Amino acid sequence: MHNLVSLNSGVCASDGFYADGISAGLKPNGAKDMAFIYSDVECEVASVFTTNKMCAAPIKHFRSMGSFKTNFVLINSKNANAMTGKKGITDISEILSTCKNVTNPIMSSTGVIGVRLPKEKIINGIKLFDFTKKEPNSAASAIMTTDTFSKEIAYKVELEDGSSFKIGAMAKGAGMINPAMATMLCFITTDAKVSQSEMQSILDETTKKTFNAASVDGDTSTNDTVLILSNGKSGAYEKEAFKEALFKIMHFLALEMVRDGEGATKLVTYNVTGAKDDREAEVVAKALSDSLLMKTALFGEDPNWGRIASTVGASGAESNEESLTISFNEHCVYEKGTLYFDESMEEKCALVMKKDRFTIFCDLGIGTGNFEAYGCDLGHEYVKINADYRT
Amino acid sequence: MHNLVSLNSGVCASDGFYADGISAGLKPNGAKDMAFIYSDVECEVASVFTTNKMCAAPIKHFRSMGSFKTNFVLINSKNANAMTGKKGITDISEILSTCKNVTNPIMSSTGVIGVRLPKEKIINGIKLFDFTKKEPNSAASAIMTTDTFSKEIAYKVELEDGSSFKIGAMAKGAGMINPAMATMLCFITTDAKVSQSEMQSILDETTKKTFNAASVDGDTSTNDTVLILSNGKSGAYEKEAFKEALFKIMHFLALEMVRDGEGATKLVTYNVTGAKDDREAEVVAKALSDSLLMKTALFGEDPNWGRIASTVGASGAESNEESLTISFNEHCVYEKGTLYFDESMEEKCALVMKKDRFTIFCDLGIGTGNFEAYGCDLGHEYVKINADYRT
Repeated sequence: MHNLVSLNSGVCASDGFYADGISAGLKPNGAKDMAFIYSDVECEVASVFTTNKMCAAPIKHFRSMGSFKTNFVLINSKNANAMTGKKGITDISEILSTCKNVTNPIMSSTGVIGVRLPKEKIINGIKLFDFTKKEPNSAASAIMTTDTFSKEIAYKVELEDGSSFKIGAMAKGAGMINPAMATMLCFITTDAKVSQSEMQSILDETTKKTFNAASVDGDTSTNDTVLILSNGKSGAYEKEAFKEALFKIMHFLALEMVRDGEGATKLVTYNVTGAKDDREAEVVAKALSDSLLMKTALFGEDPNWGRIASTVGASGAESNEESLTISFNEHCVYEKGTLYFDESMEEKCALVMKKDRFTIFCDLGIGTGNFEAYGCDLGHEYVKINADYRT
Repeated sequence: MHNLVSLNSGVCASDGFYADGISAGLKPNGAKDMAFIYSDVECEVASVFTTNKMCAAPIKHFRSMGSFKTNFVLINSKNANAMTGKKGITDISEILSTCKNVTNPIMSSTGVIGVRLPKEKIINGIKLFDFTKKEPNSAASAIMTTDTFSKEIAYKVELEDGSSFKIGAMAKGAGMINPAMATMLCFITTDAKVSQSEMQSILDETTKKTFNAASVDGDTSTNDTVLILSNGKSGAYEKEAFKEALFKIMHFLALEMVRDGEGATKLVTYNVTGAKDDREAEVVAKALSDSLLMKTALFGEDPNWGRIASTVGASGAESNEESLTISFNEHCVYEKGTLYFDESMEEKCALVMKKDRFTIFCDLGIGTGNFEAYGCDLGHEYVKINADYRT
C-alpha cells in the first residue's frame, strides 16, 4: 500500500523544480503578472486544453511543437493572447526566442481577449527571472486574475518499497468564466518516473472527473489549460499511487476554483446515480450545476426540489417521475412518486442549504450510471462582477 | 396577395369563440386564476408541448386522448399539476367530468410543482363560467403567474378572393423559467378552415422559429404548451396567409415573453449567419442567448465582443477566428481576423447597448446556415425574483 503525505507547498515540491512570480508591468500598481516554472532536467509533458474552437495563440503554438521534452514554462496574466490570429503565435515565438538556457519553452496566457501581447514588457520581464528561486506561492499569485486567493497543493507519495515521489500544483480560475479576464490554468510538477503516454492517459481520465465536472457558469474559455511536467528525478513510480495523488490534487484545485467562483457563497456537490449510463449521469449532473434556477435557489437557500425535478427532466437524459428520488444531504424529499416535503422537511432542508457545502443526491432509478459534479450559487455579486467588469 | 389587419383583441377575435377569467380562490386576494376558451362549434386541435421528461399531468392527460375534436379548454394558474403522478391525471378526469355541454374538454395548468390540484375549488370555479362571455383580456390575465403584463394579439386575414378569416391568441410566461411558478402557455384560436394535419405541421415549424428561439434562462418547464383551436366558421383559408399570420402572432408573443423575462431590461436579437447549416446556426444563436456572460455583459451595457467570440467557439459549432465577423447593429467590431474595436468604436457600441432592443450579428463565414434567437439580460432583479421567490 502507498501513503500520501500532504506537503505545505506547490509547484516546487518536487525535486529539481523552481518557480517564481515577478511584476512586468502588465497589471497596474506593480502587481505580479508573470511566472515561470523551471526544471533542472528536461521533463515529459502531458496536457489538456480547452475545447473552445477560438482557442488562444499559446495553445496553437504548443500544438505546433508536436511531441517534445521541455524544462521551462512561461506564464503571463492580464492578456490572454486570444483572437489575435497568426500574429499572436509569432509574438510567442519572438518572446520565447529570448529565453536563454531552456529547451522547448512553453508559454501560457490568461487575461483580456483580442489584444496583442505587450512583447517588450514580457521580454524585459523574462530578464528578471532567477532559475534558482523556489517561490511557488509567488508564482501562484502572479497567474491570478479575478481569483480572490491563490490555489496550491502538494503531496509526497510513499510507495510500499520505501521509494517515494512528489507531486505539486498551482492553479488559477474563478470559474472558467469571464472571457474578458478568462481562463482556468493548472500546472502540475512531479519527480515521478512516469512515461509520457501513461501520464497523458491518466491526465485525460482525471480531467473528466475533476476540472470538467466543476462549473461556475458553464462557460469554456479560449485558454483553459492543464499541464503536467515530470522530470523523473525521484526514480520512483507506481501507477495507482500516481493516479490517486493526481486525482486528489486536481479534485482539490477544481473545488477551490468553484469555491472562488465569482460571487459564490456555497459549494454544492450534485451526486447523480441510477442513470442509464455514466454519460447520461454526467449530462444530468452538469445540467443541475449549470442551471440558473438551481443557482439562484441555492443563493436564496430555498429547498426548491421542483426545480431539481424539472432540470432533470429537461436535461434530455432518460428519466421519469415514478423512478426519481431527490435528497438534500440525508433528507429525502421525493422518492419514486412519493413526496415527503412537508413543513418539517422543508425546515430541515433549508438548514442544509444554509451550509457552505452540501450535497444534492439525485437517483434516476433507471440504470447504474453515476457522476458527481460541483457547482456554486449565483448571487448579486456575480452579476456585479460580470456586468461592471470593464467600468 | 393577402392582407393582414391588426385587431385590438385576443382569443375571442375569431367568430364563434368565447373566453373569460374568474377567481376560484387559488391565488390570494381574489385575483383571477381560472380561464376558459369555448367555441360554439367543435374545433380541430394542433398542439406542441414541452420536451421535459417530467412533463405535467395535463400534458399526459391530453396525449392519452388520441386524436379528437374539442370545444372547450380549461386553464388554471397557481398550480402546475406536475410531479403529481397518476393521481394528477385522475384529478383532471374528475374535474373535467363536471363540465357540462362540452366535447372532449382539455385542461392546462401553470404554477407550483409537486402539489395536488385543489379539486373542489376548481370544480366550484367551473360553475362560475359563462359561455356567452367574450372577455379575452380577463382570460389572459387569469393565466398569468410571474408575468408583469398580459399578452394578446389578433389579426384579420383578408384573402385575394374577398374572403377572410381571423386568428387571435393569448400567452403567459415570463421566460420559460422559474419551475416553482413555471411554464409558458399559449392558446391560439381561429375560424380559418384549415385541416388538422396542415395546422399541426405549420405549428411545428413556426414553434422552432418563435417560442423555441426565445430564451430567458435556457430552462424548459414541465408544462410548456401551445394549442391552436380552429372551428372553420369563416369558411376561408389560404396556406401562405395562415402561415404568415401564425408566425407574426407567435413571434410577437415569444418576444413579449422575453421582454417580460424576470428582471429583464433589454431584448436582444442574435442573428447568426454563415454557419455550416441551419442547425449549427441555431446552436450558436442559442448558446449566445443562454450565456450567463453575455447576459451580464448586456446588463452592464458592456460591448464585450470577446465574450461573443468565446461563446461561439465554445458552442461546438464549426467556427474559427479567421472567418468570424461580429457586429453590434451596424457597427462591425471584428471581421475575419481584423479588429476594429478602438475607443471610438467602443463608444458607438456602448451606445447601441444602451437601447431597449438591438441586434448582435455573428457571421461564421463557413456556410449558408442561419438562425435568429432572442434573449434578454440578467440583472440583480432576476437574482432577487428567483432567489427570494418562496420567502
